[in-house]
Amino acid sequence: MSLPSPYLLFIGDATDPLSIKMARSAADWSPEKCVGELRLPGCQVTTGCPAMSISEATQAGAKSLVLGFANSGGHLDPNWLPIVHEAIASGMDIISGLHDRLSAIPELVAAAEKFGVKLHDIRHPTQRLRTGKGYARPGKRLLTVGTDCSVGKMYTTLALSRELQRRQANVTFRATGQSGILVAGEGIAIDCVIADFIAGAVEQLAPANDADHWDLIEGQGSLFHPAFAGVSLGLLHGAQPDALIVCHALGRNSMRAIHGRPLPGLAETIELNLQMARVTNVNAKVIGIAVNTSAVDEEQAVTYCQDVEQQFGMPCVDPIRHGVARLADIIEKW
Amino acid sequence: MSLPSPYLLFIGDATDPLSIKMARSAADWSPEKCVGELRLPGCQVTTGCPAMSISEATQAGAKSLVLGFANSGGHLDPNWLPIVHEAIASGMDIISGLHDRLSAIPELVAAAEKFGVKLHDIRHPTQRLRTGKGYARPGKRLLTVGTDCSVGKMYTTLALSRELQRRQANVTFRATGQSGILVAGEGIAIDCVIADFIAGAVEQLAPANDADHWDLIEGQGSLFHPAFAGVSLGLLHGAQPDALIVCHALGRNSMRAIHGRPLPGLAETIELNLQMARVTNVNAKVIGIAVNTSAVDEEQAVTYCQDVEQQFGMPCVDPIRHGVARLADIIEKW
Repeated sequence: MSLPSPYLLFIGDATDPLSIKMARSAADWSPEKCVGELRLPGCQVTTGCPAMSISEATQAGAKSLVLGFANSGGHLDPNWLPIVHEAIASGMDIISGLHDRLSAIPELVAAAEKFGVKLHDIRHPTQRLRTGKGYARPGKRLLTVGTDCSVGKMYTTLALSRELQRRQANVTFRATGQSGILVAGEGIAIDCVIADFIAGAVEQLAPANDADHWDLIEGQGSLFHPAFAGVSLGLLHGAQPDALIVCHALGRNSMRAIHGRPLPGLAETIELNLQMARVTNVNAKVIGIAVNTSAVDEEQAVTYCQDVEQQFGMPCVDPIRHGVARLADIIEKW
Repeated sequence: MSLPSPYLLFIGDATDPLSIKMARSAADWSPEKCVGELRLPGCQVTTGCPAMSISEATQAGAKSLVLGFANSGGHLDPNWLPIVHEAIASGMDIISGLHDRLSAIPELVAAAEKFGVKLHDIRHPTQRLRTGKGYARPGKRLLTVGTDCSVGKMYTTLALSRELQRRQANVTFRATGQSGILVAGEGIAIDCVIADFIAGAVEQLAPANDADHWDLIEGQGSLFHPAFAGVSLGLLHGAQPDALIVCHALGRNSMRAIHGRPLPGLAETIELNLQMARVTNVNAKVIGIAVNTSAVDEEQAVTYCQDVEQQFGMPCVDPIRHGVARLADIIEKW
């Protein structure tokens, strides 16, 4: 997968910071690749990159327009098409993480051909997938799981990968969503594979490896989410994880996009993930807890994490506030 | 979905009776629509329909060739293409339940156009799908679940539907796999939707209904199957079932297509399905057990079912040997 950078991050008229995860991921994890962001009137969020028009971005060297938002269902809003056409006409490739394919829109395909640019539908797997088997395979694997969607699974996994790579450990980050794929340049968006192949796709994404090698696999969704638990379960079975990290967001009132449904507790999240993980790895362990504590102040965050540590007997950190060194220690000494 | 009948059931060189489920389903549940079966040398199984060549079937009035087998992964074997071309040239539509699309093979599309016939990829959903929500909806729903794949979930659900329709109950069979769709003429093959939409597709397939109406939803896979548990879980959440029937096949040594993995017990299957069902319906109940006892004799079958009844305190029947009247009684008196 070759995605020309630098990127202009298109965040539309988004009002929810969680909805521009793909743009923010690029800005946070590959800032050297991001030249600016393109906002529409009404937009209330930002990636932190300078605001730019398409012509300004072109002058600044932008090679691709990234559709940096996601809605539930991954549909392409027709209101965005004029921007996409303008970017194509300016010579930019288009990178999309939506379920709707750019390549299924004849006018975009024609425009891309006319201006000699490419349309990258990075959420759509291009390889031939197989069904899973669940047979034990060599190599070690870690998977982040969550109490909900958008609680920091990708962030935690990327932070842990960078930290362990810095320590020269033998690790690979495995992207399972469009944001992770944009950062890593490869991966399989597990929520976009045909349902029969969820577990099998993860077996292909994180195959047999050296005994001391770790695949650090980005988790998706939650076993408790009424829309996405199937994705989470297939990912858990396919990952065959030795180690799990449970991710959580403090102060969230209801599960992502589901009004009135409270998040599960940490204890039941740990218990259910271990129970289900044992289908393909009887030795799966939860090694730590990663919490997005941005809803509270520094002191409350520390108190919360200390309480959780005491209750569960394992490290609990906010990867942004406290870093992931203590989680990395466990993997390094495994 | 309009599928021209009568059908010629193509079962290739299959040797495993479970692999021709789609052909057998048509022969068992819509015998009036099946004119014959087409076998290749080496084929060791049968649907019970008379063997016919394509020209014999054409003379007997066959309107469609049904690709009546499935392999793990749903791939189209290139060895079958000459047969498909011959059927097209004889004026038959082609009905496929494979993951591989007939409509993605340009030579087949061209041949179909030339001879004025249609290619039906019935496993591929044609409607626009949404993500699930899990909000409580009116109407009653029953879902069959299993210890494994291919243990009689579709058979049990169809038998129950016919029995309750005979009693003039207000019920609808909801097909979730290609065989059920072939029998019912409609449905959504849940294992073939994009993973994000598993639960949502079931919410669309079995939507809000009259308070006394029952949707009888065909189950898929097993929560214990390392390849397909994600499909089963999304289906369970989307179905939001009031009633569950656990299906099992007696005497099977290992889970379908997974060497050396034993089937889970009935107790743990009941327990895990109830536990997971509660995410979208806290009142879900297991009302009975349906067992394929074909591996043992009549007396052993009766003894086994009596033992299970005693252990779990609910009816246990072999739908083929004993019928499903006792299960239908529970739904009728709900």
